[in-house]
Amino acid sequence: MIKRLAVIGVGLIGGSYARALRAAGQVEEIIGCGRSRENLERAVELGVIDTYRHDIGEAVEGADLVFLAVPLGAIRAAFEAMQGHLAENAIITDAGSVKGSVIRDCEEAFGCMLPNFVPGHPIAGTEQNGVEASFAELYQNRRVILTPVCQTNESAIAVVHATWRYCGAEVTRMFAVDHDRILAATSHLPHMLAYALVDMLARMDDKEEVFRYAAGGFRDFTRIASSNPVMWRDICVANKDQLATLVEDFATELQLLATAIRAGEQQQLEQIFENARNTRERFVDGVKSSG
Amino acid sequence: MIKRLAVIGVGLIGGSYARALRAAGQVEEIIGCGRSRENLERAVELGVIDTYRHDIGEAVEGADLVFLAVPLGAIRAAFEAMQGHLAENAIITDAGSVKGSVIRDCEEAFGCMLPNFVPGHPIAGTEQNGVEASFAELYQNRRVILTPVCQTNESAIAVVHATWRYCGAEVTRMFAVDHDRILAATSHLPHMLAYALVDMLARMDDKEEVFRYAAGGFRDFTRIASSNPVMWRDICVANKDQLATLVEDFATELQLLATAIRAGEQQQLEQIFENARNTRERFVDGVKSSG
Repeated sequence: MIKRLAVIGVGLIGGSYARALRAAGQVEEIIGCGRSRENLERAVELGVIDTYRHDIGEAVEGADLVFLAVPLGAIRAAFEAMQGHLAENAIITDAGSVKGSVIRDCEEAFGCMLPNFVPGHPIAGTEQNGVEASFAELYQNRRVILTPVCQTNESAIAVVHATWRYCGAEVTRMFAVDHDRILAATSHLPHMLAYALVDMLARMDDKEEVFRYAAGGFRDFTRIASSNPVMWRDICVANKDQLATLVEDFATELQLLATAIRAGEQQQLEQIFENARNTRERFVDGVKSSG
Repeated sequence: MIKRLAVIGVGLIGGSYARALRAAGQVEEIIGCGRSRENLERAVELGVIDTYRHDIGEAVEGADLVFLAVPLGAIRAAFEAMQGHLAENAIITDAGSVKGSVIRDCEEAFGCMLPNFVPGHPIAGTEQNGVEASFAELYQNRRVILTPVCQTNESAIAVVHATWRYCGAEVTRMFAVDHDRILAATSHLPHMLAYALVDMLARMDDKEEVFRYAAGGFRDFTRIASSNPVMWRDICVANKDQLATLVEDFATELQLLATAIRAGEQQQLEQIFENARNTRERFVDGVKSSG
């Protein structure tokens, strides 16, 4: 049972975590923290949090668990604001989409990796933002990846692991570098492709005509291009080395594909498409939803 | 009223066209043509067609309207098989996803563009195939693009236009070259990106691990990579010049994007994402479904 939970950033992710733990009867008191007074007051009205602070230092005081659900670009400053305010055995976890950068932020803010900081990433979300969009079931049957380092306390990992289980999530553990490589492939790169495609078409002279004939497949394909631009800017910066390399590799693949198309290499083209279709059917359609 | 309609290729596209015209009471007799006896007999059972032939020449004899719904790679041979069998005033239309190549196929098979051939493309479809998947409402509120040439008879265009209106579709007209450029941008290129992405990830050593963490966004984004590989091989060949150029252009965009990511160009990245999101919301989410 958590006596006091501090949720830094009471939006979809933070709000849903608070709701789920409250629904599971696993938390006594919840303090919210954020910049928007309106959002925080709404969170109190909705019963997501009990009270709120605008100052991170004040919000974490006396908390035995701190859940950091701010944009990646704000994590370093959040760590800095906690300095001197954390209770001695306070456990901290986060929900950032890139894990190497969050570990670096912690190290740089505190001069070392905090043994009670358990980096985490729930692979869940909708295109909605704000506490209004949060709901207790968001994490049910979704995957959560924890990326502790050597010096992370096993007891802290166990507490964070348990909270996610109470949220209904399936928890796995891996190295931050593997997390960042895997997510670059299945999440960050696809977002770059969707954004870059729509951006390129938007610069065509007859873009109105072009988009008029976009069909359902295009809508599905580009749905992720409606994601939050600031969040994705931060992800790019946080995972820049792995992501830039992957985007370059993909550009090279496309050059080869363009060459095959221009040369009319029917067999090669069919093989690529066949391999993709079979792989997708085996690994994507075949597995249960994980986000 | 059409006295005899010949549907060459009785699958989702051909079957749905036949069903819709029958439902609208616009056709007396429907002859199906295809290779699979099983599929054709099922089509008769379902009332989609009245009778069938395996030979295209026999199927088109006496037909006043021929609907060509075979894969792009089979269109040239279908035109050749019609030679000497078409009724004098027979009108022909097709459903190919690329229009320039279909016009060339007609010219090469007949030595000239048939004045009663009206090239067309219904922007509709599902991931299902075969006559079982066909339904009379497939084309309702979908767009159909006709791409006649200078020598195409206006009376033939009017007949084909009317049949699509009876199917519930919205019909527009443009030059084949414009059709092929627009569809390359909104359909062919996205398919190439989805296929190439899944194909690249399928070659990663830890692909099982990678796909395990693919979330809902990835599933939507790659849905079109489950499309028919042979159909897409044919589309690549048929639209190779426009498509290869576009794939190359997109590869160049990605190189620039990778450079911006590596350099941490936050402002530039945010601008690209913002532009994409705004454009998508304005032109894609804002318009009614057209496919």
